[in-house]
Amino acid sequence: ENSFRLAIMPGDGIGVEVMEAATAVLEAIEKRHDIGFKMERVNGGARQYQETGVAMTEEGFEAAERADAILFGAMGSPDIRHPDGTEPAPQLDMRFRMKLYAGLRPIRAIPGVPLALASPRASEIDFALVRESTEGLFASRGKGIVTDDKVATDTMRITRDVTERVSHFSFKLAERRARRRKRKGTVTLIDKSNVFRSFAFMRKIFFEVASQHPDVTAAQHSIDATALDLIRRPWDFDVMVTENMFGDILSDLGAGLVGGMGFAPSADIGDDHALFQPCHGTAPDIAGQGIANPVAMILSTAMMLDWLGARHSSEACLEAADEIETAVDAAFGAGSVRPYDIGGSDGTGAIARAIIERLAP
Amino acid sequence: ENSFRLAIMPGDGIGVEVMEAATAVLEAIEKRHDIGFKMERVNGGARQYQETGVAMTEEGFEAAERADAILFGAMGSPDIRHPDGTEPAPQLDMRFRMKLYAGLRPIRAIPGVPLALASPRASEIDFALVRESTEGLFASRGKGIVTDDKVATDTMRITRDVTERVSHFSFKLAERRARRRKRKGTVTLIDKSNVFRSFAFMRKIFFEVASQHPDVTAAQHSIDATALDLIRRPWDFDVMVTENMFGDILSDLGAGLVGGMGFAPSADIGDDHALFQPCHGTAPDIAGQGIANPVAMILSTAMMLDWLGARHSSEACLEAADEIETAVDAAFGAGSVRPYDIGGSDGTGAIARAIIERLAP
Ligand SMILES: CC(C)[C@H](C(=O)O)[C@@H](O)C(=O)O
Ligand SMILES: CC(C)[C@H](C(=O)O)[C@@H](O)C(=O)O
Repeated sequence: ENSFRLAIMPGDGIGVEVMEAATAVLEAIEKRHDIGFKMERVNGGARQYQETGVAMTEEGFEAAERADAILFGAMGSPDIRHPDGTEPAPQLDMRFRMKLYAGLRPIRAIPGVPLALASPRASEIDFALVRESTEGLFASRGKGIVTDDKVATDTMRITRDVTERVSHFSFKLAERRARRRKRKGTVTLIDKSNVFRSFAFMRKIFFEVASQHPDVTAAQHSIDATALDLIRRPWDFDVMVTENMFGDILSDLGAGLVGGMGFAPSADIGDDHALFQPCHGTAPDIAGQGIANPVAMILSTAMMLDWLGARHSSEACLEAADEIETAVDAAFGAGSVRPYDIGGSDGTGAIARAIIERLAP
Repeated sequence: ENSFRLAIMPGDGIGVEVMEAATAVLEAIEKRHDIGFKMERVNGGARQYQETGVAMTEEGFEAAERADAILFGAMGSPDIRHPDGTEPAPQLDMRFRMKLYAGLRPIRAIPGVPLALASPRASEIDFALVRESTEGLFASRGKGIVTDDKVATDTMRITRDVTERVSHFSFKLAERRARRRKRKGTVTLIDKSNVFRSFAFMRKIFFEVASQHPDVTAAQHSIDATALDLIRRPWDFDVMVTENMFGDILSDLGAGLVGGMGFAPSADIGDDHALFQPCHGTAPDIAGQGIANPVAMILSTAMMLDWLGARHSSEACLEAADEIETAVDAAFGAGSVRPYDIGGSDGTGAIARAIIERLAP
């Protein structure tokens, strides 16, 4: 029963390289646990768009939808654009199509990875950002209107339904984190409700949902003040939930605090499907050299195991997820590996091996 | 001829306190230079809204418009809201009404003020953010639509006209900074043009304008990558220009790097009017205690003198602006003052006096 079909979507650039590292970790997990993975490779990305005019085919989407979970590397290239000036981004298509509304982006200081902030408390950073990922400003993707080369508009959209779902998701996450950490959880809504009606609406619904989760503290904070507070006191946050565009910004900011994009995993979770990918892009400047940091991809793989474990009541998956996290911490905590992005000289394969070596035997 | 009418708008909370510090500095400048100020006080703010239902009267706006420059403290209160859930914000009304499209927010490390980042290069931070302040997402303020308590929308609007103006403003600013710093300037447009047509439109116009300023390097960067790079390498930026909502976020982030909101001045500049105010709000939690940090307000006052000097070809004003900046640096560089917001115990008046004492005699 512990057998899962995975859609493996390496994509472009370093996506391919970090995906190799992730599948190596999964193979090591298979050897150690009573879990089996059936991996089906699904192609797509900017290069495919360039060659065929389609970044991802309908068959590709369907293959991904058939899988129990989707592992995604990175897709895109700044030079490959649609005629309207925007870029093909199949990861956005998948979020919309499969209704992956909860973009979960944990930000956690990994022992041994250099922190950006001077404060000694920076090592306490451990929060989870939930980026709503199917509406907000991104609802306007492909729908912006340019009139007479004079005025352009894009419309942000916030619905009650999705706001309720993503709020419930955030409160449940806070409950789970609270159990682990043995202290009361807090969910903070990040918005700009002092200025915009759609955010005032979001705030209203958020607090409606909050009343159904009395064990969790509910708070609200403005996006601008949050940008400041992520510099001044990021250790004070637990779970944050926010609109799509704001979440895009805050997740990169958060990643910057704890080592950069090479250490930032993510999950795009819906009611029926889930996709796991590093927050980083295809990094054309370093692609093909074997020097990409695979940690974000490997931690995303751990998030996948955690999600599979919770969804299918699989203790083995939950354990494997924990083991990967622990192995990453051990590999860096010992100071034994140091990828290029933080000034070291360990390549993609070396980092993956160091993590695999530290998995429970 | 060096006589200027100033509209003085203290507003609410600590706005009143920091404004007192600013006018004390202006009086000291009058004594030292051949400049005279005629100050007219203009009321407005959240408290006035509560008492009269109007945050700022038509006469108030007109008085501000008649002045040569507007000095603004802070207005607003999180508890005082419109029926639609948003808050009265006369500063936004003024930006729109007077077409103050260039929201200039300099971010500079002040010697002696603690920096957030661990990197020794943090002391090199010195960039200028230009936040477009009359359109973008904020064009939707008061216009958002909530349908059936189910869906809410706000529409971002970007026009060719304003984008051209704010781009020219940014390139001219970079030229001026380059002359001072004796190296080629760079203007970086911050957008999300890989996803949104309105931003792709903004990017197109930005580069059209860039071609008219060949002495300045023009660059483009995504908002998410920028949030990360402001943590990783903020010292690399010179002038940044961006949409209104993005600018709101990045300016607080930037302020966080160099001491927080107590040190973050700003100017809202249009073709006919200009308003100068600290980036911080009314801080109800500390209002009335005399402990607010007036540096942001005092540096905003220096920005006003700089703007008046350039606009009216007044050497005296330009000099006075420089002197205030130098005096601020001297007051902090000597380590002799330390406001509450960075862990010290010098109140608003003490900081103002320390700065005034250090003005050229
Ligand atoms: C690649 C890009 C379209 C995407 C986004 O903006 O969502 C990325 O930045 C992310 O954060 O997943
Ligand atoms: C007070 C608020 C409406 C304002 C804004 O959002 O523009 C403030 O945050 C600012 O940055 O000037």
